[in-house]
Amino acid sequence: MIRHVVLFTWADEATNEQRKTVAAELSKLPGIIEQIRDYRLGDDLGISPGNQQFALVADFDDVESFLVYRDHPAHQAVIRDHIKPILASRAAVQYEL
Amino acid sequence: MIRHVVLFTWADEATNEQRKTVAAELSKLPGIIEQIRDYRLGDDLGISPGNQQFALVADFDDVESFLVYRDHPAHQAVIRDHIKPILASRAAVQYEL
Repeated sequence: MIRHVVLFTWADEATNEQRKTVAAELSKLPGIIEQIRDYRLGDDLGISPGNQQFALVADFDDVESFLVYRDHPAHQAVIRDHIKPILASRAAVQYEL
Repeated sequence: MIRHVVLFTWADEATNEQRKTVAAELSKLPGIIEQIRDYRLGDDLGISPGNQQFALVADFDDVESFLVYRDHPAHQAVIRDHIKPILASRAAVQYEL
């Protein structure tokens, strides 16, 4: 199994509605991209200082399945239309479970 | 459930032995800190450019259990003795599953 982890911080001018739309649009992807095995996202709880603001952890059977997700048009549309317009920074890792 | 996600990059001068020691020492914590429900760590696979180098995803029953882990002497010892000496950058989020 391959685990994909990505953390975001948002631009100061990002609205709550824009942030919620990112979560809502990403949450549709497990219903669209059948390679996704597990998909958990959410806002940082604010219990540790210096954190990023949003996390997504997604599990896949193998690297090929992750690449299908990464490059899928539905995923790329969320990145282009909803994430990039409010993105300040991104940190990611893919690793083997 | 609370998910704790942390991503690291290492200093250029970090040796492979030092990196492996971080993973080995962290991997002992589920046997020491009973609040840990799931604990998966690993090196980035190198399949996406610009990634961080190491990921840890840990699940807990609640915020209090995460805080026990965060502040546990055995965890703090790994941070002090093995992570901080080779740490270049850290990104983290705690979120609700």
